[in-house]
Amino acid sequence: MSNSLPTREEDYSKWYNDLVVQAELADYSPVRGCMVIRPYGYAIWNRIKNALNERIEQSGVDEAYFPLFIPMSFFEREAEHVEGFSPELAVVTHGGGKELEEPLVVRPTSEAIIGDMFSKWIQSYRDLPLKINQWANVVRWEKRPRLFLRTLEFLWQEGHTAHSSYEEAQEMVEEILFNVYQDFCEQVAAIPVIPGKKSENEKFAGALATYTLEAMMGNTWALQAGTSHNLGQNFAKAFNIQYSDDNNELQDAWTTSWGMTSRMVGAVIMVHGDDHGLVLPPKLAPHQIVIVPIWRDEEQQEAVLAKCQELLGELGDFRVKLDDRDSYSPGFKFNEWEQKGVPVRLEIGPKDLEKGTVVVARRDMPGKQGKQFVSMETETLIPTLHNLLDEIQSSMLEKAREFQLSHTYEPKDYAELQDMIPEGWVHAYWCEDEACEAKVKEDTKATLRCLPFEEESEGTCIVCGKPATKKAVFARAY
Amino acid sequence: MSNSLPTREEDYSKWYNDLVVQAELADYSPVRGCMVIRPYGYAIWNRIKNALNERIEQSGVDEAYFPLFIPMSFFEREAEHVEGFSPELAVVTHGGGKELEEPLVVRPTSEAIIGDMFSKWIQSYRDLPLKINQWANVVRWEKRPRLFLRTLEFLWQEGHTAHSSYEEAQEMVEEILFNVYQDFCEQVAAIPVIPGKKSENEKFAGALATYTLEAMMGNTWALQAGTSHNLGQNFAKAFNIQYSDDNNELQDAWTTSWGMTSRMVGAVIMVHGDDHGLVLPPKLAPHQIVIVPIWRDEEQQEAVLAKCQELLGELGDFRVKLDDRDSYSPGFKFNEWEQKGVPVRLEIGPKDLEKGTVVVARRDMPGKQGKQFVSMETETLIPTLHNLLDEIQSSMLEKAREFQLSHTYEPKDYAELQDMIPEGWVHAYWCEDEACEAKVKEDTKATLRCLPFEEESEGTCIVCGKPATKKAVFARAY
Repeated sequence: MSNSLPTREEDYSKWYNDLVVQAELADYSPVRGCMVIRPYGYAIWNRIKNALNERIEQSGVDEAYFPLFIPMSFFEREAEHVEGFSPELAVVTHGGGKELEEPLVVRPTSEAIIGDMFSKWIQSYRDLPLKINQWANVVRWEKRPRLFLRTLEFLWQEGHTAHSSYEEAQEMVEEILFNVYQDFCEQVAAIPVIPGKKSENEKFAGALATYTLEAMMGNTWALQAGTSHNLGQNFAKAFNIQYSDDNNELQDAWTTSWGMTSRMVGAVIMVHGDDHGLVLPPKLAPHQIVIVPIWRDEEQQEAVLAKCQELLGELGDFRVKLDDRDSYSPGFKFNEWEQKGVPVRLEIGPKDLEKGTVVVARRDMPGKQGKQFVSMETETLIPTLHNLLDEIQSSMLEKAREFQLSHTYEPKDYAELQDMIPEGWVHAYWCEDEACEAKVKEDTKATLRCLPFEEESEGTCIVCGKPATKKAVFARAY
Repeated sequence: MSNSLPTREEDYSKWYNDLVVQAELADYSPVRGCMVIRPYGYAIWNRIKNALNERIEQSGVDEAYFPLFIPMSFFEREAEHVEGFSPELAVVTHGGGKELEEPLVVRPTSEAIIGDMFSKWIQSYRDLPLKINQWANVVRWEKRPRLFLRTLEFLWQEGHTAHSSYEEAQEMVEEILFNVYQDFCEQVAAIPVIPGKKSENEKFAGALATYTLEAMMGNTWALQAGTSHNLGQNFAKAFNIQYSDDNNELQDAWTTSWGMTSRMVGAVIMVHGDDHGLVLPPKLAPHQIVIVPIWRDEEQQEAVLAKCQELLGELGDFRVKLDDRDSYSPGFKFNEWEQKGVPVRLEIGPKDLEKGTVVVARRDMPGKQGKQFVSMETETLIPTLHNLLDEIQSSMLEKAREFQLSHTYEPKDYAELQDMIPEGWVHAYWCEDEACEAKVKEDTKATLRCLPFEEESEGTCIVCGKPATKKAVFARAY
């Protein structure tokens, strides 16, 4: 592992790419735009999956699995859907040595195939609601791929539900947005998010409405952390998802879909990382604590390692890594685990053995400020570590929230908006005209991230000056 | 759910297909040869995954993720590999609206892409062993698809390791075969297996040697439950996986690969199922216990349901389903959960409330023999259920083992072999000549399943009569 990150100030983009590779989170693959997720990165993703899955199950959703391939004709049934996705499709034209009669699309999302199965499984109002989630890989032909953030193939969960009314579908969409996604982002990933509605221009191809969670990265750009779509009856009509209601009359169902992806690993890196490398929230860290033993000679080594092994056995409450490699110096190990973002480091040397103490260092607070001596007695050490990890988890969220708030601006006019975009997010009245949205994008490269859930009020559009009742967030985005 | 299975005797194949669909394990999809795994089937697969993953981790293997697509040229680097897999490939020729310069293969297995990454990550003997596993979907263009057993797309884990010697690689291959796969099959899935080596003809395309676990299904056909390959230096040479040894000389690495797939769900169905439906081993059952309340009127309903709810709360040690639907009769529910293979059923009616007892019925022992009255007192009921589930788990393994033993024959000559193949497995001397293997297949449709791990002895080939030192298992197979 080399250790030469540019600072974020110098080159944020290179800082990110180098960090992903150097911290062994992911690697470039020989397939254009596809990445390899390495064990350390995958361990973070597995923790993201588990935390999300727990919440998805609590929302009464069952897990299932649908085919990777979708017949092209299925894709074409919902007009907006196919229009939105066609430029991004990967297409299988040959199978088993022969040209296929009908090409198969590698799923970019599964509304089409799941809609068809739903039409088979749903007959009566008694079959509703139907709530299914799958964890899967999907493929979208990205023009400018970035590790984790935008790759041709990515990993995600996609939930698909069917209901007997608009209201129930909308409730589901919001349940997922707030109780699953926002709760996960803030309580587990320590990433504050702004939930809101997408503009018509930015909504999912085929949806009635798309809701999003927008997170601010360390360079103030926005990242869409998850989306939840109310599909209305569009997909039900396209795929014949009909049920007989309690009057025995046929009705089209109301469906939803929602997803969160492996780009969340990228979000964790960019929200919390610093110039030394990753900073992982304790709830997502593969190792919450690393023990680094310090010795000068073999005698010391034996005594120190024995104590470290003992501690390792006593700290079963935590995910602990003991770095007992003897070919690397303590300083090298400090750097490596710092770059890999381990929340807490325990240093144990011969002097500590004498004093019965251990140095406890926080990753999120580099330098002396984050260091303390703690007794090795487990009745002191264990509660101290529990408190410290809790404290790190909540202080990381707080810090990210402060950063987001202090980089969100309310410009008084369009000129100020243009000045502020390079510095952060802009929160301003918008008249809901697509032309104004497009102008902002042309002038500043900022897109309309969302219309936050806020009470309507009266003002004037920041772009055209016409009356407006809603505020939007504009930002540069990944 | 309809409830009309043919008996296994009448039509084993239809029994299997109907059961998979009726018990809502999986469904046919509109994509030829691809299936949909429904929540009940997926819950079984999730339990298989977790049990395997635990064992894989204990073998010191890390989880990672590699691209779905493999450039065609990579695939062609190992000659036997491409020859073996080309008839089964699905090929992406178009992406992002354009024809690709080089077609991409949808992975049928990942040696090629992982080999390339290994060559990047491995430089020195210090980087070895490298042990990686991924859970993924793969695609092989099957001509005769069957739900779970043989589908175009299936789910699996594929492990890939690199070592500095043949011996270490072989140790890894056997560690996985015995400590991961056989242990899982027998201790979790209650499926007895015969571990052995594949013949040259049946080995993995590109491997030095393939080891397998063969399981006997309820119709006496064999099913390959998992395979573990010693790839020798073949893939290392094709993909330049080289390391400098401790004399600083470049060496080719020794690699292995090994996989177990979603067809294991099919194996569980076919090994344990009976004419009433599924019989699930308690360790894999999504619900270990189902509580079916019985009532005649509303007053009874209230009292019985209250007691059931109370019990549900007390049985937190187990995975329990309370079937409190009031639109179905108890008899209907008995049938449904029987067909879905729930290991233990608790029946609670008004009389049970009076007596303070509950009827406990075992799925694996239909009829009166498997029924008992047990006190509702938790200090009696809980240990009884623990013991009962343990007893069911081990008795299912025992029963399957007896079936396998009693349907494995040692014919005295080739004529007897031909008679015996329709009745079960044949265990007989084989001279290791491919011609004899091919003759058995032509005459009986039986393939050489494996050469079991046995001491060599002296005998004569069951086909040609020439001297032989090894015995093989021949059987019809899925």
